Formats: sequence, C-alpha cells, structure tokens
Amino acid sequence: MSRQVLNRWIYLFLSVLPTISLFSQAKTNNNEDALFIRQIHDVALTEGRCYPWLHHLTKKIGARLAGSPQAAAAVEYTFQMLDTLGLDSVWLQPCTVPHWVRGEQEVVRIAQSDMGTVELRALALGNSVGTGEAGISAEVIGVMGIDELEKLGEAKLKGKIVFFNRPFDATKLNTFEAYGGAVDQRAYGASEAAKFGAIGVLVRSMASGLNDDPHTGGLVYKDGLPKIPACAISTNDAELLGKLLEKSLVKVYMRTACQQLSEKASFNVIGEIRGSEYPEEIIVVGGHLDSWDVGEGAHDDGAGCVQSMDILQVFKRLNYKPKRTIRCVLFMNEENGLRGGTAYADEAKRKGEHHVAAIESDRGGFVPRGFTVDGEAAVFAEKFPLMQPWHSVLEPYGLHIKKGGGGADISPLKPQGVLLIGFEPDSQRYFDFHHTEVDVFESVNKRELELGTAAMASLIFLMDKYGL
Amino acid sequence: MSRQVLNRWIYLFLSVLPTISLFSQAKTNNNEDALFIRQIHDVALTEGRCYPWLHHLTKKIGARLAGSPQAAAAVEYTFQMLDTLGLDSVWLQPCTVPHWVRGEQEVVRIAQSDMGTVELRALALGNSVGTGEAGISAEVIGVMGIDELEKLGEAKLKGKIVFFNRPFDATKLNTFEAYGGAVDQRAYGASEAAKFGAIGVLVRSMASGLNDDPHTGGLVYKDGLPKIPACAISTNDAELLGKLLEKSLVKVYMRTACQQLSEKASFNVIGEIRGSEYPEEIIVVGGHLDSWDVGEGAHDDGAGCVQSMDILQVFKRLNYKPKRTIRCVLFMNEENGLRGGTAYADEAKRKGEHHVAAIESDRGGFVPRGFTVDGEAAVFAEKFPLMQPWHSVLEPYGLHIKKGGGGADISPLKPQGVLLIGFEPDSQRYFDFHHTEVDVFESVNKRELELGTAAMASLIFLMDKYGL
Repeated sequence: MSRQVLNRWIYLFLSVLPTISLFSQAKTNNNEDALFIRQIHDVALTEGRCYPWLHHLTKKIGARLAGSPQAAAAVEYTFQMLDTLGLDSVWLQPCTVPHWVRGEQEVVRIAQSDMGTVELRALALGNSVGTGEAGISAEVIGVMGIDELEKLGEAKLKGKIVFFNRPFDATKLNTFEAYGGAVDQRAYGASEAAKFGAIGVLVRSMASGLNDDPHTGGLVYKDGLPKIPACAISTNDAELLGKLLEKSLVKVYMRTACQQLSEKASFNVIGEIRGSEYPEEIIVVGGHLDSWDVGEGAHDDGAGCVQSMDILQVFKRLNYKPKRTIRCVLFMNEENGLRGGTAYADEAKRKGEHHVAAIESDRGGFVPRGFTVDGEAAVFAEKFPLMQPWHSVLEPYGLHIKKGGGGADISPLKPQGVLLIGFEPDSQRYFDFHHTEVDVFESVNKRELELGTAAMASLIFLMDKYGL
Repeated sequence: MSRQVLNRWIYLFLSVLPTISLFSQAKTNNNEDALFIRQIHDVALTEGRCYPWLHHLTKKIGARLAGSPQAAAAVEYTFQMLDTLGLDSVWLQPCTVPHWVRGEQEVVRIAQSDMGTVELRALALGNSVGTGEAGISAEVIGVMGIDELEKLGEAKLKGKIVFFNRPFDATKLNTFEAYGGAVDQRAYGASEAAKFGAIGVLVRSMASGLNDDPHTGGLVYKDGLPKIPACAISTNDAELLGKLLEKSLVKVYMRTACQQLSEKASFNVIGEIRGSEYPEEIIVVGGHLDSWDVGEGAHDDGAGCVQSMDILQVFKRLNYKPKRTIRCVLFMNEENGLRGGTAYADEAKRKGEHHVAAIESDRGGFVPRGFTVDGEAAVFAEKFPLMQPWHSVLEPYGLHIKKGGGGADISPLKPQGVLLIGFEPDSQRYFDFHHTEVDVFESVNKRELELGTAAMASLIFLMDKYGL
C-alpha cells in the first residue's frame, strides 16, 4: 500500500467511525425508540390540545399583528395555557415592537383603460406608508422584475406607478422555492422603483395559483430613498392588469391609510421542562405568535405556536422526564421586525446559555414531511451526521432530515453555534393562505396539525436522549 | 470454505444478481429517465388540463350516481374531452348498472330522550330500502360493533333501531386503515341487526373527525334476511346520541324515501395511445366516473378520472410515443355495484388482452406519496422486484413503491395475472370529504391534483420503457 493510499484508507476509516458507532447505538435502542415515538403519536392524535388552542387563538382572538391589542391578548392567552401544564417555568420575555396599522380599507382602482374602470382586490403591504387622504393617481408601468427598472430609467418611471407582475414558478416542487424566486418584488420593489422617481407600487400577490385573494406581507424601505406606498393585488387582478397593459395605457388610482405608530411593549412567551441530567443544555421549539392583520393567522403561525405548546403537553402526559431542558418559545413580531427573535438571542448570549438546537415551525400546519437543518459550517458538519441514524425510526412516519433552512425567529441564534432546524410540512397549499383573509382556522386540518406536534416531539425526544 | 458456507455464498450471490443488473440498468438510463420525469412534472404543473376538467365535472355536472342523468352527462363529457386529445382510439364500453335513488330528504329525529326531541343530520345509506311514507319509530340500542349483537339477541333487539357507534381509530397513521376498521358497521350492520329482529339501523359516519357532515356509502343486504332501512348520522350527532343513551331511554323516528329503480344502460369511457413496439401489452390507468348522489364527487372520484385523462394529454403534449399501449379507463358504478370494473375485466378476458399492469387513482386528489402494489402471489413475486430500481428517480418527488391494495375497479383483473397498482396520495384529509355534501371542487387543490397526474405518468413511463 502506498503512503497516499494508506492515508486515504485511514482517513476513510476514521471518517466512517462515528457513523458506525451511532448506527450501532441507534440499532441497540431502536425498538425502545420506535415504541416511544409511537406513544408520542398516539397521545398527540388522541389527547393533543393544539387544535382547541388554535381555535381560541384564531376565532376568539384572531389576527394579531405586533403592537395590536390582539397580540397582547395572544400573549396573555398562551401564557395562561402554558401555565396549566405543570411546567417547571413559564415566563414572559420583554421586547419592544413596531406598531404598523392598515387604517381604513385600501382602494386600488383602474381609473382608465380599455375596459374602463375596475376595482382591484388589494392589500397595502406591511410597513408601507399611506398615500394620504386624496390618494394618488398615475399611469402604470408593468415589469416582470426589479432588474427591468434600470433600463426603463427615470425617463419612463418618474411620476408613475410601477407594477411588478412576475408570478411564482409553478414547476418548483417546493412552493417556498417559488416564493423565494418572486418575493424580492414585494420586499424591495418600492424602494427600487422610488430610485427612478416612481410614486407608487403594485405587486402581484405572492401566491401559488390564480384567485381573488390579495396577499399582504412586509416591505423594506431602503435608507435615503423616498418611501412610496405599495399594495399587493390578487393574482387574478394581476393577470387582468397585465393583459390591459399589453393593449393600452392604464391609469390607476390608489388610496391607503397605513401608518407607523409609536413602538409598543410586548413579549415572547416561554415555558420549559427543566432537564434532569443536563439542565443547562437547552432544546428550543417555537413559532411566532404575531400574524398579519388580515385573516386569523391560522397557518402563519398559529399552527407553529400551538404545536410547540402541545409538545410540552404531550411530554407531560407521557410523564417523560427529559435529560435536557426543553423550552417552548412563542416569538413576537416575526412578520415585521423580528424583535422577539432578536431579544431571545440577545438574552441567551448575555446569560451564556447553551442551546443544543432550536426548531421552528413556521411553514403551516400541514402534513409533516420532515426537517431541514442549518447552522454555522463547523456546527453543521459536526452535528448533522449525528442525526442520520435517527432516520430509521422517523421514516415510518414519512419524515426525512435534510440540509435546509431553519426559521426566521431562531436565525439570530445561528452565530452562537446553535443548530437550527426547520420543521417541514408539505408545502403545496401554504401559499394559498399565507398573509390573506383566508388563513383561518377552517383551513387547518386537525390530524395534519397534530401529526406536526408528534413529528417535532419525536425529534426532540431523540435529541434529548442522544444529545447533539 | 466449507460446502455449507460455499452454498450459502452462491445462493446469496445469485439472489442479488437480478437486483444488481437492474440497478445498473436503471443507473445507465438514470439521467435520461430523471430528465423525462422532470419534463412530465413541468408539463403537468403548467399545461395540465385535469383541474378545469374537474371543474366541469363537479360544477357543471355534479353528483353522478350510476344510472342518473348526471352519470350519463359525465360519460358524454369525458368521452368528448378524450376525443379532443388526438388519441388512437376513444370508445364507450357498455355495462348495465343498478339505479338507486335517495328520494325526498331523510328525516332522523330523536323523538324521546333526556334532551327532548333533536333533529339529527343524516343520510340514508346507498342501496338502503326506504321506511315507507309513515316512517318508523322505535327505541334505540347502541352498540360498538356487529360482534355485540349476538349477546344482546332477539330479546333486546327485536323491534328496535340498532345504532352502530364505533369511531375511527385516530392512532392509525393511514386513515384508510381506520376506515377499514369501522366500515363493516356500514356495509353489513343492517343485515346483521335484521337477523335479531331489528327494524332499522343508524351508523356513525365513516369520518376521521367530529363534525356535522353525514357520510353516505354502500350497504350490502345479505340474502334471506329482511331488508331494513339504514342511515348514517354525523359524528357530532353520533357523539350526542351515544351520550344520551348512557343516561336514559332514547326513541328515534326515521323516514327515508329510497328506492331501487330498474337497471339502466351505461358505459365505461376509454381512450388509448397505441404502443409502437408492443401494442398488445396494455397499461391501464383509471378512476371511477360515478359518485354518490351528494356533494360533487370531487375527490371521490372526479380527481382520479381527470388525472387519468390528463396523463394521456401530458404524453401527447410531450410527443411521447409509448412502446406499449397506454389506456385510460373511466369506470362506471364503483360505488354501488362495480359493474363497470366487472364488464372491463370480462371483455379483456374474452378478447384475450394482455395487461401489463393497471393503476387506479381512487383515494382523492391529495399530494402524492407513492404507489401500493398488489397481484396474484406469483405475479407479485415476479414483478414487484422489477420496480425497485425505479425508486431512485421517483424519490426526489417523494414517491415510494410499497406492497398494498390496488383499487376496486381494477380488482376483477387480478385473476388474469394483472399487476394492480393503487396510486397513494396523502390520506389525512380524505375522510373529511368522502361521500359527503362537502366533497366539492373547492376541496381539491390544483397543484396537489396535478402532482398526482405527474406521479402516475412517471410510473407509467417507467413501466412502458422497461416493461414488467
């Protein structure tokens, strides 16, 4: 054997060693693990509390944008519910949040076109300024993306309303990829159009299909540029507007009454079961308690909140005593500020807390498909392989563990070396509901929601038992 | 090496050989296959026709029980749509079907109880006789299953209405298993109760959860026993009735106007692309065109029909010339007679047709999870292993190939040595809609439906290319 070959052989041998030992370990406890994961599912499907909790959060409280009275009610309600579970601690973690309000219902109207006047179904984008009481009126220039603006320049765009009309790519199997390929228009379109003197922006809704529901969502104004008002219009109306623009000049009138009010005091809601052997090792699971101000925030992200709470309830009901601390965190203000996620990571750093991993459920209450894992390169390289032996007990439930995104609220923990895990439900229907009036309780299926609780509880059980 | 060890080694070596060679074959064409399966998905998701076809079938035609004018309209509509695709043949295959009608809306009322009188949400079971105009009135005896009847005997049951109240087992991950564990009450409850002199039957709806929607579905009367009327009541009402029975005597009044009319002439609708190399080798894909007489038969089984039709449309659009004959069959009368499936198998046998495989889509238009395979023992043992190498190109789409049921309509082909394949979408939501007023177009998601088309087309492509 040449030295080179020998080195290579040693390298390969050593590199598979941890895998082998973990596989053996997993094999040893495979039956026991499988049995407990089966129990977790049985309890979640027969004694879960997530569904009635979601009913209250959506039907009795409703939409709960950060800073709103409903957000305060959601904090109080979930705090009280966690307090009924006999946890070791339940507390509120303060954070200050922006407070944006939509005001009177928006008007977006085609004021001049081949078809005459047409009312469009619209929602002002979150964080957008209002138009003023008189509204604005201007010719519409349609584009399929931000990159077309430069070529059009000030000559074509000054004084106009820019309409961003690039649809989702339907061939992406995962709708979050399609969303990722379109959402720059909503997030940055207003400032990019303002660069060239545009006075307003319309954006095709971030939706998988054609229908009448406009989708709101956050925009980000860039410093040093004029803040111009922006609205999303439904995909059906975007199709119509696009077709009218092919034929003739179109003028639109838009009026919005949005305002950014003073910041408000708010909270993350936290409950935990303290670890019996390694209490200082923390496993976080959470969702975000705030939602947009339309619909009921059922999938986004009431589902993730009640699942996270229910995981603790299921563990308590099974009388499971974790070795490590399992902490449920309901983050405030994911939608338009991420102040809750930031406050949580700041305090963790200040206190020198050691987080093993953080799981976020913020992709809807649909049937579970698995988990996507993220982290600083060294953390990922060390910990991701340790999770692979768990496939054998998770596969019967259709759950994979893949590389991929964690979640917005837990992302500030990444620089602290925390492994970030995104719970991944099936994505097909999410962008039918996301940020709309139809994201309501009735759009969530009880079993699908409960299976999400069980999937995350199963992974947490494995992380708690074997460590990471 | 001892003789024993040598024998074992040879055995092992030989037994893996076919797997190895097939894996290599699959590997050789892996990229090509993966590319074509990607194209199938792209076309299904962007140029699919299944969704607008389903819209017509559900909204313009609606519920279409065998023998009804709507079933005739569905035959004509799907025949005409297949005829637009430029197939090699489109034809109608005659069959005679039973013609059951519900008549005037059923009344099921708690006439005496601790709560006084309560109207229950009910649907007469398919094939049930009516009560006569005066209706029937009797004390209710609640049971959790057929096996309890014998113990109660004629002494307790004569002249009574028997109420079967065993719910779905929520811990079954696949809801079809839960259905399988409860449906004997609906199918055989009436005759089993009639044995002991009962005069009517109520059945808890075959549903995953608690709600107000009664689920109809077929019952089977046993020869030589009195035919007594039977209704399903909603799961919420079943809970109520169950609780009232714990406390006091309950009498129910029920009136139904169902009738079995004379048999009617009807058809299976068939279209095919003839194979270029092996035209005599037939691959069937189908669903059933009839539905129950409530709702719109969207998931059950409009979805399976339009997917099967769309598979041929996708192949034509891709200009795919199959080696083998690919045949779409829309079966008539799955719900209350299986006459279409029987007629199809009879004619195949008479003509000596050679079917490679038959796929049925009859589990709803939900997101695809894979396929379940069935067949006579020798057929299964020979062909199932040949499908395993296909996992590598199907897995990126989340599709498995497992042992399991085929489908009712294709089941009469089994004795002819045909491999039966059931398309398996996610099962969680199916029994929220199955046989109810809420099985309507709006309950089907466009992308989920289209992904089903793509999944089945992908499997058919592999079967066509590699044979079975």
